Amino acid sequence: MNDLIRQKSQAMQAELVRLRRDIHRHAEVGWTEFRTAAVIAARLKELGYEVKMGEAAVKKADMLGVPAPDELSAHMERAVKQGADPALVKAMEGGLTGLVAELDSGKPGPLIALRFDIDANDINEASTAEHFPRKESFASVNPGAAHACGHDGHVAMGLGVASLLTEMKSELKGKIRLIFEPGEEGSRGARAMVGAGAVDGVDHILGVHIGFQATKTGQLICSTGKFLATTKLDVTYTGKPAHAGAAPQEGKNALLAAASASLNLHAIARHGQGATRITVGTLVAGEGRNVIPAHAVFKMETRGETSEIDEFMAGEARRIIEGSALTYGVDYHIEMVGGTKSGESSPATRDVLKKVAIEMGCFNDIRDYIGFGATEDFSHLMTVVQENGGLGTYFMLGANLSAGHHNDKFDFDESVLSTGVELIVKTVVTLQAE
Amino acid sequence: MNDLIRQKSQAMQAELVRLRRDIHRHAEVGWTEFRTAAVIAARLKELGYEVKMGEAAVKKADMLGVPAPDELSAHMERAVKQGADPALVKAMEGGLTGLVAELDSGKPGPLIALRFDIDANDINEASTAEHFPRKESFASVNPGAAHACGHDGHVAMGLGVASLLTEMKSELKGKIRLIFEPGEEGSRGARAMVGAGAVDGVDHILGVHIGFQATKTGQLICSTGKFLATTKLDVTYTGKPAHAGAAPQEGKNALLAAASASLNLHAIARHGQGATRITVGTLVAGEGRNVIPAHAVFKMETRGETSEIDEFMAGEARRIIEGSALTYGVDYHIEMVGGTKSGESSPATRDVLKKVAIEMGCFNDIRDYIGFGATEDFSHLMTVVQENGGLGTYFMLGANLSAGHHNDKFDFDESVLSTGVELIVKTVVTLQAE
Amino acid sequence: MNDLIRQKSQAMQAELVRLRRDIHRHAEVGWTEFRTAAVIAARLKELGYEVKMGEAAVKKADMLGVPAPDELSAHMERAVKQGADPALVKAMEGGLTGLVAELDSGKPGPLIALRFDIDANDINEASTAEHFPRKESFASVNPGAAHACGHDGHVAMGLGVASLLTEMKSELKGKIRLIFEPGEEGSRGARAMVGAGAVDGVDHILGVHIGFQATKTGQLICSTGKFLATTKLDVTYTGKPAHAGAAPQEGKNALLAAASASLNLHAIARHGQGATRITVGTLVAGEGRNVIPAHAVFKMETRGETSEIDEFMAGEARRIIEGSALTYGVDYHIEMVGGTKSGESSPATRDVLKKVAIEMGCFNDIRDYIGFGATEDFSHLMTVVQENGGLGTYFMLGANLSAGHHNDKFDFDESVLSTGVELIVKTVVTLQAE
Amino acid sequence: MNDLIRQKSQAMQAELVRLRRDIHRHAEVGWTEFRTAAVIAARLKELGYEVKMGEAAVKKADMLGVPAPDELSAHMERAVKQGADPALVKAMEGGLTGLVAELDSGKPGPLIALRFDIDANDINEASTAEHFPRKESFASVNPGAAHACGHDGHVAMGLGVASLLTEMKSELKGKIRLIFEPGEEGSRGARAMVGAGAVDGVDHILGVHIGFQATKTGQLICSTGKFLATTKLDVTYTGKPAHAGAAPQEGKNALLAAASASLNLHAIARHGQGATRITVGTLVAGEGRNVIPAHAVFKMETRGETSEIDEFMAGEARRIIEGSALTYGVDYHIEMVGGTKSGESSPATRDVLKKVAIEMGCFNDIRDYIGFGATEDFSHLMTVVQENGGLGTYFMLGANLSAGHHNDKFDFDESVLSTGVELIVKTVVTLQAE
Repeated sequence: MNDLIRQKSQAMQAELVRLRRDIHRHAEVGWTEFRTAAVIAARLKELGYEVKMGEAAVKKADMLGVPAPDELSAHMERAVKQGADPALVKAMEGGLTGLVAELDSGKPGPLIALRFDIDANDINEASTAEHFPRKESFASVNPGAAHACGHDGHVAMGLGVASLLTEMKSELKGKIRLIFEPGEEGSRGARAMVGAGAVDGVDHILGVHIGFQATKTGQLICSTGKFLATTKLDVTYTGKPAHAGAAPQEGKNALLAAASASLNLHAIARHGQGATRITVGTLVAGEGRNVIPAHAVFKMETRGETSEIDEFMAGEARRIIEGSALTYGVDYHIEMVGGTKSGESSPATRDVLKKVAIEMGCFNDIRDYIGFGATEDFSHLMTVVQENGGLGTYFMLGANLSAGHHNDKFDFDESVLSTGVELIVKTVVTLQAE
Repeated sequence: MNDLIRQKSQAMQAELVRLRRDIHRHAEVGWTEFRTAAVIAARLKELGYEVKMGEAAVKKADMLGVPAPDELSAHMERAVKQGADPALVKAMEGGLTGLVAELDSGKPGPLIALRFDIDANDINEASTAEHFPRKESFASVNPGAAHACGHDGHVAMGLGVASLLTEMKSELKGKIRLIFEPGEEGSRGARAMVGAGAVDGVDHILGVHIGFQATKTGQLICSTGKFLATTKLDVTYTGKPAHAGAAPQEGKNALLAAASASLNLHAIARHGQGATRITVGTLVAGEGRNVIPAHAVFKMETRGETSEIDEFMAGEARRIIEGSALTYGVDYHIEMVGGTKSGESSPATRDVLKKVAIEMGCFNDIRDYIGFGATEDFSHLMTVVQENGGLGTYFMLGANLSAGHHNDKFDFDESVLSTGVELIVKTVVTLQAE
Repeated sequence: MNDLIRQKSQAMQAELVRLRRDIHRHAEVGWTEFRTAAVIAARLKELGYEVKMGEAAVKKADMLGVPAPDELSAHMERAVKQGADPALVKAMEGGLTGLVAELDSGKPGPLIALRFDIDANDINEASTAEHFPRKESFASVNPGAAHACGHDGHVAMGLGVASLLTEMKSELKGKIRLIFEPGEEGSRGARAMVGAGAVDGVDHILGVHIGFQATKTGQLICSTGKFLATTKLDVTYTGKPAHAGAAPQEGKNALLAAASASLNLHAIARHGQGATRITVGTLVAGEGRNVIPAHAVFKMETRGETSEIDEFMAGEARRIIEGSALTYGVDYHIEMVGGTKSGESSPATRDVLKKVAIEMGCFNDIRDYIGFGATEDFSHLMTVVQENGGLGTYFMLGANLSAGHHNDKFDFDESVLSTGVELIVKTVVTLQAE
Repeated sequence: MNDLIRQKSQAMQAELVRLRRDIHRHAEVGWTEFRTAAVIAARLKELGYEVKMGEAAVKKADMLGVPAPDELSAHMERAVKQGADPALVKAMEGGLTGLVAELDSGKPGPLIALRFDIDANDINEASTAEHFPRKESFASVNPGAAHACGHDGHVAMGLGVASLLTEMKSELKGKIRLIFEPGEEGSRGARAMVGAGAVDGVDHILGVHIGFQATKTGQLICSTGKFLATTKLDVTYTGKPAHAGAAPQEGKNALLAAASASLNLHAIARHGQGATRITVGTLVAGEGRNVIPAHAVFKMETRGETSEIDEFMAGEARRIIEGSALTYGVDYHIEMVGGTKSGESSPATRDVLKKVAIEMGCFNDIRDYIGFGATEDFSHLMTVVQENGGLGTYFMLGANLSAGHHNDKFDFDESVLSTGVELIVKTVVTLQAE
């Protein structure tokens, strides 16, 4: 069977490239992936998958950092204009762009989840002539959206895996669940998909990233840990304006509330159990030089080496925000716009993946583990799976890169797409056999 | 009758000096004037006055800045040891050292209140040989208490006036109420005496200060205004200690709460309607270099050009103190330890006093008015009288001084005592006649 | 002569209205009054005045709050397009839009200065149908610029006075200097004109405002005082960005520097000698949620009851801004963008104006004085005149208004224009006669 | 030879107990160990050691946290009164209470340093009847000083080792240097002894602690790491007092400078390379409620997972302290009162010690390593030795305890003293043989 999987994987390389470039060309940022998700859903249905969409895939109340309604509407229109099936787009109204598809082999066996993230970055793609997507005419046509993190490749691999699995259905055991996650950037999507049950009952979950910490084709990092937990908050203070010369005492100063909050937030105690971070990254306040400032908005985030530590940080932050509001007599509003749990891959799952990779013989640099020290929304899904008794790993699929992730000149070696499909499908099969 | 009043006033000069020196020698600070008040009460009773003491003169719930119970007990014991009538001292248990005495002429007429403050300053009296009270052996024998603000002279004048009025009873109309106020320093006594009804029904109230803003014998300032309202608060934050190295996150930092409160208090908005002041004067926090500070105490005050403005300041302060406590998750306790209203003397009362003073012929420099720009607890009494439809004035009786008020070398020319008695009694008689 | 002045004033009413509407229609904000000043200069030259322009009227180094060079260029082009003489516009390159014109009677006598401010407000004029300038088609055609403070009327009066004075030249003594000041809004122009000598040698200076504090035609306030001194600063902090997760210690946090500065600025001590104000009105900082903020900009102002008090405030502010920069290791830049001295009109000048006004017989409500409690750039000019031994007054010419000053629906009763010309000319004549 | 060492060690147990109790009874805190050091020096001289004292052992300029001169004098007097040799005490004038003694075998071989800390804690020893030192009458007779950290036992072991080594001199190679360190508490002594050359040329350094992290007799932890580097600073701000009501603008507010510094210190950025700590532990500011505070003092410390990280923290702290002083226009003074480097024991030295311990056969629980996560002044000495190419280890000698370290009821099982001597001497001999 191993030979067959390789053969079929390699055979689909051209199709994977086509898919990847189509997604790349129509890049869509978090919660606006209407066309991307419609393309995926259409293909999955074609393959015979039962596809959960809308509120069946995304819990509305748990969505973080959702754009404004008019922005969502504009993006829905654009998706249709760019060829998306209007009925599918309609089904995702409100930004419900996550998808869950399941293949049931009909035989007993584990439930294995595979997660692919689908959103683009909110940057403009490079317009230099030598940028490969420009040369090959698949650079993003959507302003302010570009696939600079390889999620376009993840989508292509996801559909490749979906296709290959249906062809092999009779050989499979248990069930395989494909999770297409929107809004990974900003740590926004996982939580709402967990809320809708995306990882319920999962025994193993696999996540992949192209080129992260493994920037050469042929490299493979089999597991990742030290994912930092994070909480991202947008804070608004609303006070009362007053003439700064005539009646300053009648104002409620939102700028000073935000200034005091910013200082006191950064003064949150260090944590004896592990690393923390706290950042107020932007602050905009006030209306005019001689008016007591009535409005202030700031964007902040906390991080923690564990979810518990991040919860400590976020809890302190919320109290400080409230306390500073009280200090200045202003109203406050906190919106959680992102957040994810910390995580560590399971050695058992990693060992299976590593064994498969060695057998494949095409990797020249295989490593067990990397401590990430940063944030990936996958850790949220994996940690929930582990909390429920399952296992998981997040692996880095090495690829030659033209520039670093999130850089407007980012591009990756497309040859790794079929390798990725092969590795995932073989790992699934091996996990089912254990 | 004018000649008689002068003659009698001058005749009591030696007795006034003896009284003043006795009070001076046994100086007692706010709410501990057990001996001082006992001496006054005994003399008033002797003169036939009905004397209200204890809770009849001082409303317990409205007392501000009262010393601790064991301190009060110690001072009660000392008062008895220094010759006070034990029964009278007992009647003032709890620091109820205010007295109200009334003389009813039996004839219709206005109720005129005279206020004399009786407390000493909490300083050590100068021990230099040339300091007059030392030379004449009436320097304070009580450590940490000295009459450096002339209240000893006020007591002497009060008893002189009390005596002279009883001798003239048949000539009087209406009623005269003598108010002996404890705890003027720190703006603590007036409020509690108002609470017990000390100024109920008063038509005119007079207050006198020796040597304030009028530092030469022969000067007289007939009225005072621009008394600043003030609120004095002691604030305690109680957090939770924790080892600063091992588990800083377990602490609740009272020092930082106080630091943040201090900054934000000073940042209270200026007031468009008049002058304000805000001061955190002292701050003590923390237990050790490597322990998250669990305790912080600070002493602060606000001031305002009007009572309304001071109320704005104190209201802002209270909210900031609470907000800073919330910011750091600590408990807070605010104790109001002093406070008085703003005030302006009534021109009508001033005019009567001025006319009397001119007629007396012994002042060489008579002024109408001074804007005080500071705080005197009398303004609280006067403002309540005015709010109820009465009138009042606060006058400065010039006297040669050896040093400024509150200085440990302060002393005043005792010859003004009988002049003061004469001026007060004549003003009372004139007011009654109007 | 009085009758003649009235007659000539009234005769020019139509021309005053035409002038005012032309200026109104082509509203230009501070330091961009290229067309406005070109129109004025052309007319003055036509009348025979020697006109000082460019650096002869405005000291470059003392200009406050000047727009960026490309903005100035764009406004110069617009001015020419809207009919200004290109040569005159060229002479004002760099925003040197102030003008000084002098009439020398050839006879001995005092030097009397008249100041007219010429700039518009940086708002969009109301577009409602009932707004009079709309109805009459003279609403501002320049976006972001509207005469909502009556300076268009001041310009018209200034040219009316200029015209009338030349007709009466033989009757005059001494000299008359006309000062057309740009950038009054934001307290920007006076300082640079003083720097260029605009008030050197002045014996009397008069300033007028239409409708300020006197909102009915027929009212007149003959003098104004309690002008607050003010200093307006734009502050920039430049730190160093760093990834908030990976290496926060490598950043230099400009946002926190600005937050700390804002708090500490508002905590500047109150002043025992008079009222103060301090406001950080706007603050913008940071680049992204997860980046240590490298830039912060805030706009602030101080005010003081006297120039000395404002200098105290501004001095404290500068030290705090520098100290906060040091605290966070960031660079700072302070730009003074506005500032004016406090001021009090001279009673002697007021008395002359008042006498003239009474004689005119057309005012039904004449008042001596108003305490302004706010800021007007005229006070800077007047105070310098007084410091050099001269006198001055600022008077409020009552006019029916459609809305308050600085409101986008502001408009005034044009009938007061000729009244204003008459009052000014008669006061000049009377002052010369003294 | 091993048997002989054991025999001799056990034979001196009674003497070790006597010594320990004598030192315990006359507990002396950092830089005042005049009697303790005099006893040690006398004994070492008696044994034939050349003893370096005074500036030969302690570099004056590098001493941290030295008590005031009059305090030192009082403790010198007390030491003599309690039996110390006056000449020896005199030699330590100024608090130079460190000692270095060397034994030269005359044969080639390594230089092995042994460090024993000698100071007591600044607490009062428990007075409860069941406290063993009370029962046995060797509780501290010096108020505010008690051996609650086992340094009395360290001194006894040091002298035991010194004695045993002289008896075995002919068997030894190389040199052995005994370092008796004052002021270990507060991280004060090591730096000044390094400054005087105490670890120059050292090949191996050993340090021991009784009962730390090994609270049962029979336990041994052979090496320690993750010593946090620390810097301890006392900060004084000196401003200018002013009357808070009359002239607040004349003050320079030291309390607000300290409040602002405290907040901004706690807001120092987290470090991406490892753990940090920052604590302002105590703050005392101000003179009275209504006086602008002219003085503020605070005690603070930083910590870092590495010396570099702590240097980052201390550098940031110094800049913030200076910046806050500038912000409030006050003077500042920073005194470094403690500080030590981070450290990690050398595995090679540990392995030797471990082998010796196993051979001894008397330990039932031997562990390789403990990560300390706190501060010990020994790490400073060890790190300097390692920077110069040497090696070292810090071991924890298990002992039954009556209470935790620094607790006023702390006491330890004296039976470990002779075990400690044996372990140290055997390790020295083994290290020399390698």
